[in-house]
Amino acid sequence: MIRLIEDNDPSAFEMLKLLYPYAGQAFIIGITGSPGVGKSTLIDALITQFRKRDMKIAVIAVDPTSPFSGGAILGDRLRMQRHATDEKVFIRSMASRGQKGGLSRATKDTAVVLSAMGYDIIIIETVGAGQAEFDISFLAHSIGIVSIPGTGDGIQAVKAGILEIGDIFIVNKSDRPDAETSVLELKMMLNMRRPTTCAQTSTLSPNWTPRVLKTIAQNGTGVKELADTFLSHFDFMKQNGSIVQKKIELEHLYFNSLIKDLTMEKILLFIKNSNDFKDALNKIESGSMDPITCAENVVNNLKVTCKQ
Amino acid sequence: MIRLIEDNDPSAFEMLKLLYPYAGQAFIIGITGSPGVGKSTLIDALITQFRKRDMKIAVIAVDPTSPFSGGAILGDRLRMQRHATDEKVFIRSMASRGQKGGLSRATKDTAVVLSAMGYDIIIIETVGAGQAEFDISFLAHSIGIVSIPGTGDGIQAVKAGILEIGDIFIVNKSDRPDAETSVLELKMMLNMRRPTTCAQTSTLSPNWTPRVLKTIAQNGTGVKELADTFLSHFDFMKQNGSIVQKKIELEHLYFNSLIKDLTMEKILLFIKNSNDFKDALNKIESGSMDPITCAENVVNNLKVTCKQ
Repeated sequence: MIRLIEDNDPSAFEMLKLLYPYAGQAFIIGITGSPGVGKSTLIDALITQFRKRDMKIAVIAVDPTSPFSGGAILGDRLRMQRHATDEKVFIRSMASRGQKGGLSRATKDTAVVLSAMGYDIIIIETVGAGQAEFDISFLAHSIGIVSIPGTGDGIQAVKAGILEIGDIFIVNKSDRPDAETSVLELKMMLNMRRPTTCAQTSTLSPNWTPRVLKTIAQNGTGVKELADTFLSHFDFMKQNGSIVQKKIELEHLYFNSLIKDLTMEKILLFIKNSNDFKDALNKIESGSMDPITCAENVVNNLKVTCKQ
Repeated sequence: MIRLIEDNDPSAFEMLKLLYPYAGQAFIIGITGSPGVGKSTLIDALITQFRKRDMKIAVIAVDPTSPFSGGAILGDRLRMQRHATDEKVFIRSMASRGQKGGLSRATKDTAVVLSAMGYDIIIIETVGAGQAEFDISFLAHSIGIVSIPGTGDGIQAVKAGILEIGDIFIVNKSDRPDAETSVLELKMMLNMRRPTTCAQTSTLSPNWTPRVLKTIAQNGTGVKELADTFLSHFDFMKQNGSIVQKKIELEHLYFNSLIKDLTMEKILLFIKNSNDFKDALNKIESGSMDPITCAENVVNNLKVTCKQ
């Protein structure tokens, strides 16, 4: 089914509709951070913790694709190998192969499948965050931002726009020097974080005070506490009812992105077959008209109506 | 003008059309790499080198936005401060404020303005690369990928999908241990790079052998050679005519993204005012229909035609 989603197979779309009513129970965790901070190792250790609580875990590793590598890198899979024979653990790398709606929708669709399959926790691993195209805060109920000491985390977190979306901040490799400085810096910057007002931060849990935790994923230090903190965040949202609100919000975002994708598909097909489009390409190539005016002309000529 | 672009002011669109015929002479360099590799410092040093050749330089720093910081971070500006009084140097941070078409189009539009103003070189600085939403290879003629030693550059570069789009690979902070290893690793992986066949790599210069260079941006080591290499890449493309082909390709991509943006704008406005859309939102909230079927119904009801 996930392969069908990746391959843009139309039957995936039909099956998703059937599965949808059974999805929605899983707790979706986003784990994000720069390359090299140890996200995969941390997730591996988190799986062990959640398994001790007898929960079923699924991991979706979202790597920006490489046509060179032909998809996901072997490394991550090897690292999580020790869970390979555990049938209550499912690990899948998602590769971007030009999915309709991009990687973001393919990941969401995959989460729907896994949720319907009864996984208790779905962990989505992404490189970076706050991108317009792939925003983990559109998918996850709780977001962990991973960083390492001594890389100027604070200012970089602000630059990457990830300070706003994190529920739990993890300073990994905390046996390195400056771990304490990184923790303090993060706490300071979190104190300066504005209250939830604008659209981009609206998916944050109201009243949840973001935590800053230290881990050494390699040997498991601090990972039990991290697992507990994620679960307590989930409980917190269930108790104050904010999880219901958050789920509706995420559904609206999903619906809106579907509307965009389906509309775009339908209309681009129409446009690319039109004479207007072919004329425009010729004009651009010959330099007789700028691309902006050309695009405007093509779109002005479109007429949209509703069927009765 | 750039502020108008950022603010989605409709007059920017009209002005861009007027400016377009005067743009197109600048050499556009993309500089990308993970946070913390020293991109800003390197660009600062590159400016000095290009200024020695009496070229006019513009820098567009594209930071994923932070509602917290309200835009660009002061740090970069401070770091490049020494060029602040040089009227042949222009430095601008672009913040994402929900521009139509996203940051990618705002950056392209800004490059059009700067090119029309007669800047010889436009440097676009981005965090990361290979993102579907913001792909520097859709904007730049030559792309420099910055990394630092000892961070497993090779495998991370493959993971981030940036190996395919780089023309020049820069190992910065090369006074650190393992610099030589990083260079060798990059060279090895570049040798394994597939020839230009698929769409994503089609913007690569044909026949250009990607270079790997070492720099220490902080003290300027290797930066003269880097500047020379960028200029020789430009000359190379001019001599074999590939720059013409690349510019046409980039124009087509620009045209296509404009078509998408303008279409989306027009149609979403139509959809969001429709009763179908309001009905669908109610159904999702009450849980009586899944978002996938809802979106499909709304879009199925759309009818697109061409005006005669």
